[in-house]
Amino acid sequence: MPFSFQLDAQDPATGARAGRFVTRHGEVLTPAFLPVGTAGSVKSLAPDDLSAAGCDILLCNTYHLMLRPGASTVRHMGGLHRFMGWDGAILTDSGGFQVMSLTELNRVHEEGVEFRSHLDGSRHMLSPEEAIRVQDALEPDVAMSFDHLVRLPAPPEEVREAVSRTVRWARRGLDERSRLREQGRGSMALFGINQGGTDPAERARCFAELSGMPFDGFALGGLWVGEGRRLGLEMVERDCAEFPREKPRYLMGVGHPIDVIEAVARGVDMMDCVLPTRNARRGTVFIGSGRLVVRNAAYAQDERPLDPECDCATCRKYTRAYLRHLFVSGELLGMRLASVHAVHHMVSLVRRARAAVVAGRYAQFREDCLERFASGETLARGGAATHASRSPQRKEAACS
Amino acid sequence: MPFSFQLDAQDPATGARAGRFVTRHGEVLTPAFLPVGTAGSVKSLAPDDLSAAGCDILLCNTYHLMLRPGASTVRHMGGLHRFMGWDGAILTDSGGFQVMSLTELNRVHEEGVEFRSHLDGSRHMLSPEEAIRVQDALEPDVAMSFDHLVRLPAPPEEVREAVSRTVRWARRGLDERSRLREQGRGSMALFGINQGGTDPAERARCFAELSGMPFDGFALGGLWVGEGRRLGLEMVERDCAEFPREKPRYLMGVGHPIDVIEAVARGVDMMDCVLPTRNARRGTVFIGSGRLVVRNAAYAQDERPLDPECDCATCRKYTRAYLRHLFVSGELLGMRLASVHAVHHMVSLVRRARAAVVAGRYAQFREDCLERFASGETLARGGAATHASRSPQRKEAACS
Repeated sequence: MPFSFQLDAQDPATGARAGRFVTRHGEVLTPAFLPVGTAGSVKSLAPDDLSAAGCDILLCNTYHLMLRPGASTVRHMGGLHRFMGWDGAILTDSGGFQVMSLTELNRVHEEGVEFRSHLDGSRHMLSPEEAIRVQDALEPDVAMSFDHLVRLPAPPEEVREAVSRTVRWARRGLDERSRLREQGRGSMALFGINQGGTDPAERARCFAELSGMPFDGFALGGLWVGEGRRLGLEMVERDCAEFPREKPRYLMGVGHPIDVIEAVARGVDMMDCVLPTRNARRGTVFIGSGRLVVRNAAYAQDERPLDPECDCATCRKYTRAYLRHLFVSGELLGMRLASVHAVHHMVSLVRRARAAVVAGRYAQFREDCLERFASGETLARGGAATHASRSPQRKEAACS
Repeated sequence: MPFSFQLDAQDPATGARAGRFVTRHGEVLTPAFLPVGTAGSVKSLAPDDLSAAGCDILLCNTYHLMLRPGASTVRHMGGLHRFMGWDGAILTDSGGFQVMSLTELNRVHEEGVEFRSHLDGSRHMLSPEEAIRVQDALEPDVAMSFDHLVRLPAPPEEVREAVSRTVRWARRGLDERSRLREQGRGSMALFGINQGGTDPAERARCFAELSGMPFDGFALGGLWVGEGRRLGLEMVERDCAEFPREKPRYLMGVGHPIDVIEAVARGVDMMDCVLPTRNARRGTVFIGSGRLVVRNAAYAQDERPLDPECDCATCRKYTRAYLRHLFVSGELLGMRLASVHAVHHMVSLVRRARAAVVAGRYAQFREDCLERFASGETLARGGAATHASRSPQRKEAACS
């Protein structure tokens, strides 16, 4: 099945786009937010919760799954969808980011990256070819190219070398998929990843090479790693100006509501991030009017739902008072109910963004969302203050 | 609303009974198994999960809730049902057991028990009257009398004194409910608790007093605290022979499937226990054919559900391989999916027990269940062995 991305609308005043692509596991509407199911589970949530939240695609981590339970077990169990009981679409990352950030003693060779597992110290090698083969065994709908990421700040020659290697690895990954397809496998879409950190010239050089390769979509890599929101968004604007109109654009690792709104305004179609669900498990959730710290004593007898404007399964049924009690008491259900809201909130945000693009009023939507997010309405002072320090006016780099 | 228990059937060959009682929150079928929602949540489960598992009544702990979030908060939030979003029936215990088992520096006076909170060391006093008032604020369907429990083994005079005090406190609790009713509150049913440890004469003396009091039901207290299954069941048989036919009989703190089957055979109508759900969160579940240790490596690629004969939401959808992966990876979803099975398994067990009583074949049902539980079928050797050491033939006291 050839991968096809369809553009339904483009906002007249911003770069925002509304699109869709079809997978063997249903249609994915863009802009899309992908919750992260690291090890084959979006922590504390079941697939039914994700569906109920309107989610149609999620991300799973190749690195985690290849180490545990192992790609061969997932393949034996009929692929990731069957294994975890999720009927929607799945995108797997390539493992490149985790190999560089989670493991010790990782060594980059031209062949690939040699590393020791963060679980048991066992030695492994992930090459561009192996990353494709492992992903193929997981049977995602979309796989990612294996890239070379450098920690920023880094000397220019290191960034340059990583870009050149990312390009060479991209070709090798595509070749591996071709070989798999000759064997009747490798049916997943494959996205290339642009690198170059915050050096516009390097990002341009990287994409000049990648754009000639038959990828099904392109990702913006190496961003939101500490460079700050303004610089990150500059790179997003730069990349999106060059990325082809007819293919999906995926900004990796971004999930703060404000970043999502701003990235969509610059032409991004997909984003993933652990932030909303990780925050939720720790008792902080985004609501339309800001950031709510669930344990705040001010909510002890608050009859309102987390977000009075939300219709997620949690907000339809539970009060802030109950949620606070669950968190204060260390009850597992608190993490789950907050996570249900967190996923719903992000999916609902991109759905409303999509509707705004289709209606040709994304600029207004963005303005309304940012203003509302800064309002702190219905939030206790403590929560509002915490929120304010993270609002774009106050702190540019607030991506967590 | 007067509390009324209706007996639908009695098994001809055993003491097993099938009954029901109506509450403001629906009908409760007996024999009933009550999952434990200690602090207003059956750990990791939402009310919808309990309903889906067929549960119609659960237990909440007065001790935990009075300390956090506090009875006044629960009352302010509209009572426990509204607070936690559970529409079925709720039974609260009196706090007596926790006060004696969880707190430090607890001192028993005739007035009540003085104790320090296990959470923050704050000083509290729980008297028979206060236990009723706190429960009334929680608004359960069934409340329990405040009893004096002694740790066994204890000298006879200590047991005797505890029995006498339990009787005096029972009267005071009933009087307090009468006062509440004069104020238009106190609508919950109230069960008395028989004490006397494993001394038949003391249990008889206790019940001779309690039986004259207008309780809506009677509980068997002070059992399954280490005395062993055989002795415990002897006391159950003794108490049930004296308890009135027309009132429900509640065996507190019992939840091993074999104990449930044996207690029902002796005339018990209700039981509660954290065991099935606590075990589940730790990765061990009861299935029809024994005890399954989810992490067992033998299940790494096992496509079967936890229990091939179970139709719970977990067994309908997930494999042992996936559950094992979740537990091995420390994923929260594992605890939840295993707990869903655990509650369903116990509720299904008492439902099938009920049907057997109605059909007049409980003796056969008991025999079949025990034989099946000992079979270890579909269980890995490791699991089967662990099970065997807990089967009634091998270890009498196996109540955990």
